[in-house]
Amino acid sequence: MLTRQFERPISTSFKQDKHSGCHVIGVDIGGTNLRLALADKSGAILGRWSRSTTGARNENVIVELIREGFNALLAEASLPRNTVAAVAAGAPGITDTDQGIVVATSYLMGWRDVPLRALLEAALGVPVSIDNDVNLAALGEAHSGVAQGVDDFVFLGIGTGIGAGIVINGQLHRGCIWSAGEVGYMLVPGTSEALVDRGTPGPLEEIVGGQGIRFQWQSRWSERLTPLPQDAIATEIFDHALAGNALAQEVVQLAGRTLAYAIYNISLILNSPLFVLGGTVGMHPALGDAARKVLSQLGERVQPKLVASALGPDAQLRGAVFLAVETARNNLAPARG
Amino acid sequence: MLTRQFERPISTSFKQDKHSGCHVIGVDIGGTNLRLALADKSGAILGRWSRSTTGARNENVIVELIREGFNALLAEASLPRNTVAAVAAGAPGITDTDQGIVVATSYLMGWRDVPLRALLEAALGVPVSIDNDVNLAALGEAHSGVAQGVDDFVFLGIGTGIGAGIVINGQLHRGCIWSAGEVGYMLVPGTSEALVDRGTPGPLEEIVGGQGIRFQWQSRWSERLTPLPQDAIATEIFDHALAGNALAQEVVQLAGRTLAYAIYNISLILNSPLFVLGGTVGMHPALGDAARKVLSQLGERVQPKLVASALGPDAQLRGAVFLAVETARNNLAPARG
Repeated sequence: MLTRQFERPISTSFKQDKHSGCHVIGVDIGGTNLRLALADKSGAILGRWSRSTTGARNENVIVELIREGFNALLAEASLPRNTVAAVAAGAPGITDTDQGIVVATSYLMGWRDVPLRALLEAALGVPVSIDNDVNLAALGEAHSGVAQGVDDFVFLGIGTGIGAGIVINGQLHRGCIWSAGEVGYMLVPGTSEALVDRGTPGPLEEIVGGQGIRFQWQSRWSERLTPLPQDAIATEIFDHALAGNALAQEVVQLAGRTLAYAIYNISLILNSPLFVLGGTVGMHPALGDAARKVLSQLGERVQPKLVASALGPDAQLRGAVFLAVETARNNLAPARG
Repeated sequence: MLTRQFERPISTSFKQDKHSGCHVIGVDIGGTNLRLALADKSGAILGRWSRSTTGARNENVIVELIREGFNALLAEASLPRNTVAAVAAGAPGITDTDQGIVVATSYLMGWRDVPLRALLEAALGVPVSIDNDVNLAALGEAHSGVAQGVDDFVFLGIGTGIGAGIVINGQLHRGCIWSAGEVGYMLVPGTSEALVDRGTPGPLEEIVGGQGIRFQWQSRWSERLTPLPQDAIATEIFDHALAGNALAQEVVQLAGRTLAYAIYNISLILNSPLFVLGGTVGMHPALGDAARKVLSQLGERVQPKLVASALGPDAQLRGAVFLAVETARNNLAPARG
């Protein structure tokens, strides 16, 4: 279903013989963790490797870590290097999939115009594809998650920040300069109207993102109102709300209402029937329930279905594996080199 | 560029011989006027006909008026009936282009599930296509207006209400239940959060639509502050603002800011580089200038170009003519009947 957008000029720089290239590797470059999966060409995962990226922001450090994971996965499975037909990696930022360049990452990582595809191809010696991590999560849900067989849906990844992977007519919509789905900066009733600089969370993220939810909690916190500490994280605050704490419920309801407004707006524009809520914050039932309640009150005009991601933290990695399988398929033509 | 979405099963119910079918007719069913244009198969307009639709809301009355216009155009040009290869009509509402049904019109007209294509084919005896009028306006701008050669853009029709025609990768995006682009109901900072019923203007329309602008003016109006009457229309209020009246400027600035927020949100989602402002209200320079100013203050992240429609009130009609030309082309296969 989601194949056409992956067609790019067939690479001729990697020799493959018919016995090599039985496996692929998917990579998820997250803000806190780097995760790799070795899979066969049906997409079945055979091995996993992960490493914390805390303090490892530089692209060369990340590429070196990926090479380490690549080698470790092969060693563990007792497989030769030439068994890997392709690698695909998801990056946490705006990604030019044609050129293989990460144009800009979120305020957490600070990358600008990083030629990630070329860096990885040089380091690993196999064809590489890259894409935005939220796009890959959407792809994961489309292929092995809750959006199987759905031609139009939006994956909303809500963790520290917020991003959307938009699928229209079975294809990812990336936008003319690759920045479609940057919904963390949306303006809805209740969000700040102040100018937002690059490098700071967007107005929607200030209320619905993990960091924003912590700020909302901190600004309302009082020892008198809750036993939960002032520096609690979003999912702890959500659990606390489900357990009945009024202060936590206030924060959840604000986040849920604001998220519902954003979903309502996206739905008016795109008429998408399904929204998949992903990311540790997005998947929490407290947020989904609060958003569903407000959405149902906005009337019959827009009533998309809100469903939690089936793949959870694996959505990006599953999408990366699928993209790697596609990349391998596109590189099957006889090498001319 | 915008051809693929018009493919539908070839009609076999209309006989055409090779000498017949040299012309097409485009129809624009507006809230206040019905307009028809006779054109040759290159799309060049050869004759025009229009009639007020005030008081004529019923679909059968509208179809009868269209037949009257169809006959009048042929009589005026001294052409036989079989010279018309196809007709295309734009309707002011949500339109199922596959089934040829107007699902629902705006609160002004009150149509529900009107089989307009079948009604027109029965009345005129030629193949007919129908689409939403704002989609046709987008098509008009893409083919002979300011969006020529642009694969991704949004046409915003702002008259009494507001609608968007969304072009992605050179194709109209209509949505899974044909209601993509219903942006008059968008929620942005400053809009009402109250539940909106069908049959009433949306939150965005309450501030940016022609009717909404009149309400904003009326609620602020005082004889002391302006010589313009309390029942002025939107474009008069805009002219008054350009002439320096502070009260009118307040209304324009509110509308411009709210419109800028809506464009900003759409742009974050779709990454569209061009917005074409159409409709009598949307084309007024006072509104465009006010929106541009706010948009530029929202920072570098989203800076789409805002351009007034080149075709003005002709955009829908030009789009209808183009759709009729496409419809004629799709019906060129030898008739089996």
